[in-house]
Amino acid sequence: MKRRDFLKATAAGGAVAVATPAIAQSSPEIKWRMTSSYPKQLDILHGGAEFFAKQVAELSDGKFQISVLAAGEPIPALQALDAASNGTADAAYSSAHYFVGKDPTYAIFASVPFGLNARMQNSWLTQGGGNELANQFFAKANLIGFPCGNTGTQMGGWFRNEIKSAADMSGVRFRIGGIGGQVLQKLGVLPQQVASGDVVALLRNGSLDAAEWVGPHDDEKREFAKVAPYYYYPAFWKGGPTIHAFFNLPKYNALPKAYQAALANAAANANSWVLARYDMLNPAAMKRLVTAGVQFRPFPDEVLDAALAATKELWSEISTGNPEFKKAIDAMLAYRSDQYLWWRVAEYSNDTFMIRSRTRG
Amino acid sequence: MKRRDFLKATAAGGAVAVATPAIAQSSPEIKWRMTSSYPKQLDILHGGAEFFAKQVAELSDGKFQISVLAAGEPIPALQALDAASNGTADAAYSSAHYFVGKDPTYAIFASVPFGLNARMQNSWLTQGGGNELANQFFAKANLIGFPCGNTGTQMGGWFRNEIKSAADMSGVRFRIGGIGGQVLQKLGVLPQQVASGDVVALLRNGSLDAAEWVGPHDDEKREFAKVAPYYYYPAFWKGGPTIHAFFNLPKYNALPKAYQAALANAAANANSWVLARYDMLNPAAMKRLVTAGVQFRPFPDEVLDAALAATKELWSEISTGNPEFKKAIDAMLAYRSDQYLWWRVAEYSNDTFMIRSRTRG
Repeated sequence: MKRRDFLKATAAGGAVAVATPAIAQSSPEIKWRMTSSYPKQLDILHGGAEFFAKQVAELSDGKFQISVLAAGEPIPALQALDAASNGTADAAYSSAHYFVGKDPTYAIFASVPFGLNARMQNSWLTQGGGNELANQFFAKANLIGFPCGNTGTQMGGWFRNEIKSAADMSGVRFRIGGIGGQVLQKLGVLPQQVASGDVVALLRNGSLDAAEWVGPHDDEKREFAKVAPYYYYPAFWKGGPTIHAFFNLPKYNALPKAYQAALANAAANANSWVLARYDMLNPAAMKRLVTAGVQFRPFPDEVLDAALAATKELWSEISTGNPEFKKAIDAMLAYRSDQYLWWRVAEYSNDTFMIRSRTRG
Repeated sequence: MKRRDFLKATAAGGAVAVATPAIAQSSPEIKWRMTSSYPKQLDILHGGAEFFAKQVAELSDGKFQISVLAAGEPIPALQALDAASNGTADAAYSSAHYFVGKDPTYAIFASVPFGLNARMQNSWLTQGGGNELANQFFAKANLIGFPCGNTGTQMGGWFRNEIKSAADMSGVRFRIGGIGGQVLQKLGVLPQQVASGDVVALLRNGSLDAAEWVGPHDDEKREFAKVAPYYYYPAFWKGGPTIHAFFNLPKYNALPKAYQAALANAAANANSWVLARYDMLNPAAMKRLVTAGVQFRPFPDEVLDAALAATKELWSEISTGNPEFKKAIDAMLAYRSDQYLWWRVAEYSNDTFMIRSRTRG
C-alpha cells in the first residue's frame, strides 16, 4: 500500500473504530492498522507484531483484524508512535525510547543503560508498577501500551578495532543513538546518527569505527563481519529492552471489554514469543559467526565501570530538572537492586554452574 | 464443596462441555472446573491458576467460566492430572512430573536435574519443539497441556547441618521426591516421602535432616528457619520448572476455535505472570529471612559435580530401556548446550557486571 492510499483509506475511516462512547455491540467487526518501527528484515520483531495480530484475530473469531505495516510501509520507523498517537494508525509496535526527545522518562520503560534484564523488566512492568507508571506517560501522548516483545541482552556492536581499555573508547565514531549514546559520549565516544542502510558502507570506508544493531540472529544478515570483525558484548544500554504494543487511547477505550482483554493477552503472549524466538535462533547464528572468523569480545571491565559512573552522573543531571524522571528512575533502580540481590542466589549460581560444566554434558 | 457433592455435580454434567463433534455455537456458555496441585497457601501458584481463569472469562465476555479448585478441595494434589485425564475435572493446573511414575519422560517437560532455566525452558517448549513433544505424551493420558507458570530456579532446601563436601550429603534424610531424589540417592542421600504438613515437626524432632520446598516467598510462611537454619541453593533439579495448564483432550477438541485461542493466550499470559510475581516477592522475603538469621549457603561445587555425574548416569540407565525418554532428553540436552553457549556471552556477562556493581548503584 502506498502512503497516499493509506492516508486516503484512513481518512475514509471505513472500518476503523472511532466510536466514543464504547462500542455497544459485544463482538463488532473491527479492522485496525498497526504500524511497526521494524522492517521485515528484522523477522522476529516483525514476526512478533504479526504473531500478536494473529492471536487477536483468533481470540475474536476473526472479527477483530489488525493488519501490520512494516516500518516505511508507508509510515517511517520513527513516526510509528506519532501515527498511533494522532490516529493516523490505530496502533504501533515500537519502543518507548523513540519518545526520548519528548521526555527522557519514556526510555526507562523500554531500556536504559544498566537497567533490568528481560525477566526483571517483565516483573517490574507487570508486577512492580512499572507499566502503570509507563501508561501515565503514554496517556500524555494519547496512547496506552502493553509489553509485547523483548530481545534479551543485546550485543554491544561491531568494532573495526579492539577495545582494550576505557581510553580506547575515546574518539570512536560509534553508530548509536538515544541515552546509550549520551552515556558513551561521557567516555569520549562520538555517537553518530546514520541511516541503517548506510552503516556497512561507512564502516568499510572508515567513516565509522563501530555500529550497534541487535544480536547474532539479526546482525548475521548484514555484512558487519566483513568490515568490523570485533563483536563486543554486552550492550549494557540494552540489557532487556521492551517493545510495546501501543494503542490509540480513545480507540482502545471504545473497544468492548473482551477485545481489550484480547489485546492484553495477545500482547503478553507475543512478549514471551519474541524472547523465546530470539533465544532459539541466536545460538545457531552465533556459531556460524564464530566459524566465519568473527571475534567475540567482552568489553573490558574498565569500560563498564566508566560507563556505569557516567550513567549515574547522567541520571543525576536529568533528575535535577525533571522530577518525573527522578521518580521513575528511582523506582527502577530500587527494583533492580532487589532483583539482583535475589538473582545472584539461586538463579545466577545455577547458571554459573551450567556454564562452567556445559562441555561436560 | 465437599468431595461427594463435587463428584455428584460432575456426574450430573449439567454445565460441563462434553459435546463431540465440535460445539457448533461460536460463543456457547461453558463452565469448567480446573483442579490444582497447589494449596491456596502457595498463593502465587494458586494465584496463577486464578489469573488464568480470569483471563479466559474476560476473553470470552464471561461465557467461558473456569472455576479453580485448590489442592484437596476435593481432589488431592497428586490426583489432579488423573482427574483431568479421566474427565472428573475438565482441567488441571499441575506439573508433568507428577506422571513420572507412568513414564519418567513426563518430567523432562516440567523440570529435571540440570535442565533449563525458566527462559530457556520457555524457548524450548514454545519454539524448540519441546511442548509438541510434551503433547504427544500428554495425549496418551487424554490431555493437552500449555505452559502456565514457572517459579524460576528454586532453593535447594533447608538443612539442619552445614554441607561442606559431597561426603556430607551421605546419609542425609532429605524430604525430596521424583527424579531429583533419584539423583541425590546416588550421592548417598536418603530421599524421604513425607506429607507436606508433617515436615517441620519431623525436622524439629530430628527424624528429617533436610527438606526442600520452593523459595523465599513460599518458604518464609512455614517454620523451616527455626528448625533447619541452613538454606542451600540452587535447587539444581528445579532450574526453571514449568507448571502446565492441562485440559481433557476430547473436551478441549470440542471447544470453538476462539475458546481454544483463549486457553492458549491466557496460559501464555499466566506463564509470565507467575514468574514475574515470584520475582517481585522473593527478594523482600529473602531480606526478611536474612534478618531473621537464616544462613544462605551455596552447595559446594563438589556436590554439584557429583550430582551432575549421577544425573548423566541416570539418563543413561533410563535411556537404555526407554527410547522415547532418550529422544526427549537428548533434545533437551542439545537445546541446553546451545542456550548456555549463547547465554554466557551477552546475558550472563551483563548479569555478572550488574551483580558485581550492585552496591555501587
